Amino acid sequence: MEKKGMTPIFTVRPIEMESGYNLILLHERDAEELGLYVGDRVKLSTPSSSVVAAVNLTGKMVERGEVGTLLEVSRGLGLKKGDRVTVSPLPPPPSVEAIRKKMEGKRLTHEEIGEIIRDIVQNNLTPTEISAFVVAEYTRGMSMEEIVSLTLHMVETGEKLRLERGPVVDVHSIGGVPGNKYALVTVPLAVAGGLTVPKTSSRAITSAAGTADVMEVLANVSFSLGEIKEIVERVGGIIAWGGSVKLAPADDLLIRTERVLRIDPPCQMLASVMAKKLAEGAQHILIDLPTGPGAKVREMEEARSLAQDFMELGRRLRVRVEVALTYGGQPLGRTVGPALEAREALEALGG
Amino acid sequence: MEKKGMTPIFTVRPIEMESGYNLILLHERDAEELGLYVGDRVKLSTPSSSVVAAVNLTGKMVERGEVGTLLEVSRGLGLKKGDRVTVSPLPPPPSVEAIRKKMEGKRLTHEEIGEIIRDIVQNNLTPTEISAFVVAEYTRGMSMEEIVSLTLHMVETGEKLRLERGPVVDVHSIGGVPGNKYALVTVPLAVAGGLTVPKTSSRAITSAAGTADVMEVLANVSFSLGEIKEIVERVGGIIAWGGSVKLAPADDLLIRTERVLRIDPPCQMLASVMAKKLAEGAQHILIDLPTGPGAKVREMEEARSLAQDFMELGRRLRVRVEVALTYGGQPLGRTVGPALEAREALEALGG
Repeated sequence: MEKKGMTPIFTVRPIEMESGYNLILLHERDAEELGLYVGDRVKLSTPSSSVVAAVNLTGKMVERGEVGTLLEVSRGLGLKKGDRVTVSPLPPPPSVEAIRKKMEGKRLTHEEIGEIIRDIVQNNLTPTEISAFVVAEYTRGMSMEEIVSLTLHMVETGEKLRLERGPVVDVHSIGGVPGNKYALVTVPLAVAGGLTVPKTSSRAITSAAGTADVMEVLANVSFSLGEIKEIVERVGGIIAWGGSVKLAPADDLLIRTERVLRIDPPCQMLASVMAKKLAEGAQHILIDLPTGPGAKVREMEEARSLAQDFMELGRRLRVRVEVALTYGGQPLGRTVGPALEAREALEALGG
Repeated sequence: MEKKGMTPIFTVRPIEMESGYNLILLHERDAEELGLYVGDRVKLSTPSSSVVAAVNLTGKMVERGEVGTLLEVSRGLGLKKGDRVTVSPLPPPPSVEAIRKKMEGKRLTHEEIGEIIRDIVQNNLTPTEISAFVVAEYTRGMSMEEIVSLTLHMVETGEKLRLERGPVVDVHSIGGVPGNKYALVTVPLAVAGGLTVPKTSSRAITSAAGTADVMEVLANVSFSLGEIKEIVERVGGIIAWGGSVKLAPADDLLIRTERVLRIDPPCQMLASVMAKKLAEGAQHILIDLPTGPGAKVREMEEARSLAQDFMELGRRLRVRVEVALTYGGQPLGRTVGPALEAREALEALGG
């Protein structure tokens, strides 16, 4: 590589691959000379713009003097093959220091949690760092005050549904029990009673049918935020797939890691549920907590404690939360699977 | 994609990139149909061979019906563009379950630790999973029995130096104090006294000069394991760079993650040091533990506890370990930096 003063200059070689975060590749010998290791941060600059990226090393994909820019970086700076950029080492972002603080078992401030959530949403953290945050949350836990901060920052870093009608209510089930078609029954009932219910839901993760899958038997569920607003303003409610809108997107990125590790830190679960509801503008929330052998929550004592946490979180966030502890020891209703569940829900509504 | 019975068949599109583990890319719509999420494991098979890989999703890098194979996978199966392979979902390897157990704060068995270390060395674990292991070690700790298992598996999964002369001794400093040229003085003295010292050391991480950097001022330090054996058999000792040989390679892979997260779990550090020494065949080990303000270990009480752990680990592994608690409150000797340190070491040896 050449140098301009102390700053090394590299030639761009775009790498046609997405990495999920800002990533560049350096030849391992160049990295050694610059004292850069795998995962270190650099500032990559053109004369007009710059981006922060993590470094990965290679002995083959780029020559010495070249920097391989993955799609997030190439797009971010509009780079093409042969462009010249400078690469300067940077300290890790403050969010990495905050994650380390949580690993050590200390409490995080509102600002520190904000750093972490913003960096996750802006693709500034690597899988190694996001994993460390999730595991630290799981092993060290969070205070109610930290969970409030987590929720608020998850809402702030996403889009918001702003409805002109109300009162806006929402229902949510912790799930984990087959045949759970609660939303298909409760949402139409609440809307018929004059309430506004902008329900977003997920597809199946471990069950035969997520709420979005069941609803899709009856109608389209993939809408933009504008379409959801228009439908809810007109008819009072919706059951939409949450994957197509960016309400609290940090949640989706964290769930990706939780899924790989197969852990669900309670503090993160509380914040995730409440952040989605707050982003929809819900003022009243009903949470269904199926409890019993085979359900996610097995013991009544654990269910009561989780219910109290939900209600306390609601109080602090100034939304009304009610929790129904329901029997989760067997499948719900008589059918399991999208088409059968949709039919059973319609029959129930028909009376 | 096509299907052969229930097994989907994909067309290979090699992706010219290293990922550090076995990774494939699927189009997000194909993955959705197969119920595969980011990080899930699949078995990728040709008629003659197969490999386990993690899944990443893309909307752009491969078409529907194609599988993008990163270099580790393409090389592993000798794949080229247009080849046809089957992709079958697999449950996560047992090591991921063991990592989860450690996250929950439980003790791991010898076999479970073996699963984790083997999968790390064989590139079967993703950065998310390795990070979870390191953070779980850091937040939950490990018993002495677990550390013994960790050490033994780190030795077993690497190469070993088998010397025909002895007694084989080694020295190691925890480091962290500038100007620490202990190895350049102690290794020649021990060899002159008739001992065999196959010392491997690292380059600078945070200091101005690692032992390998200082030694490189005087002689080449990059050798294969065969060359190290030949030199030690002939002259009785060596100071070589550890990065060019695969003695306890799990250590190097774990350090990569520890560096990104800036944590050094004590259980991992104990196992790392001892695994390298055991792989060299050392029967007697002297550990230098600089203690004082600014050093890695600041309090005498902490130093004594760590020294006891080292000696206990030695007893269980049947090697003799002595620990010297030295003063680490100021730089060592009169010089700092590779050339000056090499000169000071030579002067000290000259008397």
